[in-house]
Amino acid sequence: MNSRKCAAEAIGTFWLTFAGCGSAVLAAAFPQVGIGLLGVSLAFGLSVVTMAYAIGHISGCHLNPAVTVGLTAGGRFPAADVVSYIAAQVIGAIVAGAVLYVIASGAPGFDPGKGFAANGYGVHSPGQYGLLAGLLVEVVMTGMFLFIIMGSTHGKAPAGFAPLAIGLGLTLVHLVSIPVTNTSVNPARSTGVALFAGGWALGQLWLFWIAPLLGGAAGGVLYRWLSGEQEAMVTGTKPERVEAA
Amino acid sequence: MNSRKCAAEAIGTFWLTFAGCGSAVLAAAFPQVGIGLLGVSLAFGLSVVTMAYAIGHISGCHLNPAVTVGLTAGGRFPAADVVSYIAAQVIGAIVAGAVLYVIASGAPGFDPGKGFAANGYGVHSPGQYGLLAGLLVEVVMTGMFLFIIMGSTHGKAPAGFAPLAIGLGLTLVHLVSIPVTNTSVNPARSTGVALFAGGWALGQLWLFWIAPLLGGAAGGVLYRWLSGEQEAMVTGTKPERVEAA
Amino acid sequence: MNSRKCAAEAIGTFWLTFAGCGSAVLAAAFPQVGIGLLGVSLAFGLSVVTMAYAIGHISGCHLNPAVTVGLTAGGRFPAADVVSYIAAQVIGAIVAGAVLYVIASGAPGFDPGKGFAANGYGVHSPGQYGLLAGLLVEVVMTGMFLFIIMGSTHGKAPAGFAPLAIGLGLTLVHLVSIPVTNTSVNPARSTGVALFAGGWALGQLWLFWIAPLLGGAAGGVLYRWLSGEQEAMVTGTKPERVEAA
Amino acid sequence: MNSRKCAAEAIGTFWLTFAGCGSAVLAAAFPQVGIGLLGVSLAFGLSVVTMAYAIGHISGCHLNPAVTVGLTAGGRFPAADVVSYIAAQVIGAIVAGAVLYVIASGAPGFDPGKGFAANGYGVHSPGQYGLLAGLLVEVVMTGMFLFIIMGSTHGKAPAGFAPLAIGLGLTLVHLVSIPVTNTSVNPARSTGVALFAGGWALGQLWLFWIAPLLGGAAGGVLYRWLSGEQEAMVTGTKPERVEAA
Repeated sequence: MNSRKCAAEAIGTFWLTFAGCGSAVLAAAFPQVGIGLLGVSLAFGLSVVTMAYAIGHISGCHLNPAVTVGLTAGGRFPAADVVSYIAAQVIGAIVAGAVLYVIASGAPGFDPGKGFAANGYGVHSPGQYGLLAGLLVEVVMTGMFLFIIMGSTHGKAPAGFAPLAIGLGLTLVHLVSIPVTNTSVNPARSTGVALFAGGWALGQLWLFWIAPLLGGAAGGVLYRWLSGEQEAMVTGTKPERVEAA
Repeated sequence: MNSRKCAAEAIGTFWLTFAGCGSAVLAAAFPQVGIGLLGVSLAFGLSVVTMAYAIGHISGCHLNPAVTVGLTAGGRFPAADVVSYIAAQVIGAIVAGAVLYVIASGAPGFDPGKGFAANGYGVHSPGQYGLLAGLLVEVVMTGMFLFIIMGSTHGKAPAGFAPLAIGLGLTLVHLVSIPVTNTSVNPARSTGVALFAGGWALGQLWLFWIAPLLGGAAGGVLYRWLSGEQEAMVTGTKPERVEAA
Repeated sequence: MNSRKCAAEAIGTFWLTFAGCGSAVLAAAFPQVGIGLLGVSLAFGLSVVTMAYAIGHISGCHLNPAVTVGLTAGGRFPAADVVSYIAAQVIGAIVAGAVLYVIASGAPGFDPGKGFAANGYGVHSPGQYGLLAGLLVEVVMTGMFLFIIMGSTHGKAPAGFAPLAIGLGLTLVHLVSIPVTNTSVNPARSTGVALFAGGWALGQLWLFWIAPLLGGAAGGVLYRWLSGEQEAMVTGTKPERVEAA
Repeated sequence: MNSRKCAAEAIGTFWLTFAGCGSAVLAAAFPQVGIGLLGVSLAFGLSVVTMAYAIGHISGCHLNPAVTVGLTAGGRFPAADVVSYIAAQVIGAIVAGAVLYVIASGAPGFDPGKGFAANGYGVHSPGQYGLLAGLLVEVVMTGMFLFIIMGSTHGKAPAGFAPLAIGLGLTLVHLVSIPVTNTSVNPARSTGVALFAGGWALGQLWLFWIAPLLGGAAGGVLYRWLSGEQEAMVTGTKPERVEAA
């Protein structure tokens, strides 16, 4: 495991969490001219677009434990490196939560108890969606997100465009599901802000580890089957490139 | 007919219907910070951008009976495969409607009778537009959508950019026409949610099969004439590539 | 002059005018969830993105008399073809105005006197901006638009990206200047809807021919000087490619 | 130092300041249909996307003293040219402020004292954020912006996409931080409008030189370390390309 790859994952996940959650905490509901859920969706997606072009060639730019696990399930990432990648991602996300907390505290009336962009279900869902709806949307969304990642980095997909497809895919995931769970699909991002949002967020955090990891693995396996990669790997055909996600 | 191509079309059309209609049902009118028609337009477009990069190299990524028929009319897709593609698309869309229904039901006060993103005209048009306006806008929009698909996948167009042109083209179609018919241009997407929206939506569904298919075929023929492909095919010149849409 | 090029320009300008102005007339101010000026800006830009990929390889995709004149001033387009291109563009825009009028008439309470997306200054400026501000903004915006077109289609710019740069450039032009003149930078688009908006729009139409043509020519000349193309052409160096705009 | 490069930087920074700040002054808070902070964020980003494709091949398209200093700190730009680049950028930005002032004055009720898109902290922060929060957000944002620029123009990143990554990165920076400082990350842009916004803006201008320059240098150094470029340059390996930002 290369330490530069882990540093890249930590910095990248810092950026995803800081910019994505930062847009939600600082700008989404700004009076009159706030960016709304559309702006937040764009922010999460662009954090991935920018990092995928900046560090995709260093670490593959996962920025998300569900992506790391999903790519492993899909046969694109070595299982031996999963733990160090996830550790780096969680560390980056927690630093992002801390820096965002300091900045947000600089305005009068800041109240982290109002959510701090944490994910939740039931009374902590933005639209009061229950546990089942939250579980279902996180599994389906993370699954399709991995499907997009696997497909757009496939050797037959046009080269260079995967960062756009993947980042805009994350935007799309948010356009649909923020009202349900505030959209996780990323356990590191959820952890990074839950630590600062207080008790309820930590109490519901388990869902935002289980559902994305489950969905991510399913998406990786689904695409692997669809593209016939599994068969190709068994028969010894040249594997697809892992990087550039 | 390759069964993997049909599976790809089913999954892709699931994504288009689930994410596009999901953004409308769950997030468009969310209080204060809802994504509005702009967000819904972006969602439909990005569902195509993401899938076109992910499965364009598998099935061509039609995700829409009007696209399949239009490409056939334009000389780019074999007539023998039209029925199996359309069947796969409709199945994917119906599954999407069902999953979306379950998630939407997870919030208090959900009422599928309020539309569930179904398409309509007259009193069921978002802006109360009549049948003629609805028919005209669906024909023109689907026609221009096919024109964009045919043109951006032409052999002389820059390689790799077609998914962006086509997906953002679908965004543009929605930016204009949601107030008129809630925008179909895709009979599978219309069918997938009409089944769950109830009687009126099924009663008006015929328009959202006839108009898109008619417009799509016209757009395919128009571009074929403009680009001189018809002539080229008659004289035996190498046909354009069919994939990558 | 190839008649297919003129047909492509007519169809493309139809799309720019129909979709751009259509988004403004039908969707911008839709209650609660309207797309606003941001959505209209995106619509105009995406009409160019989609057409540039679809017909850029046929006609160069000008869609705008100011672009045709600016590219001629910049040494990229033959003066002999200017008149036929502009005629095709104006015809396409007028057909777009007519089709849009029929569709818009399909809703109760439609009133073309409320603007129909026509351009204006003084009391007919959306923000009540005077003639001088309108003239200045149209000249500067069209000039910079041509500067972007000349630069992004230059032989040293990355291949294939010009349609994105140019289309998103038109989006940017609209993000700034809709409040001032409702944004023209395109005499064909202005003419296509002024015919249906009534007397005042036709009375102010002169400004939206003069200012864009003046600005466009200035932008073409400015970039030609900056890039050293003038010098290159005098000394007989290979000219830049004209297409792909 | 080539005078054409300086002219390109001046024109490009004119565009960034005119279009970015213009969208804020003219269109952000337009009644009912204003583009809001999301539209302003998009405008700043697209000004960079368009110019990077148009003049990236001429000057590298910095448009920002913090970018010039950051690229120098990152080992990508010669120190000898820093002063002339910055001078050109500031001149372009001031001309932009002047032209925008004339246009904005064309509407009844224009009041430059309401901000004129100037940057500020404390009572002049849009959300009343204090000096520390403003300093922190500007340093972090400019640092990550340079990190994105360095990474996406790296020799191993996909060719041609850097303008999109960088421009959309600037959009993302704005999506998060407009409420805090009105977002500078660019001393030239801050200076260009502060001159017209009056006393307080000039009094707080120091922060929007110090923080972006500091952050930019840090970001350049961080990426240089991460990518191993420093080592490569010491050992005499071929340097990365400097242009295309």
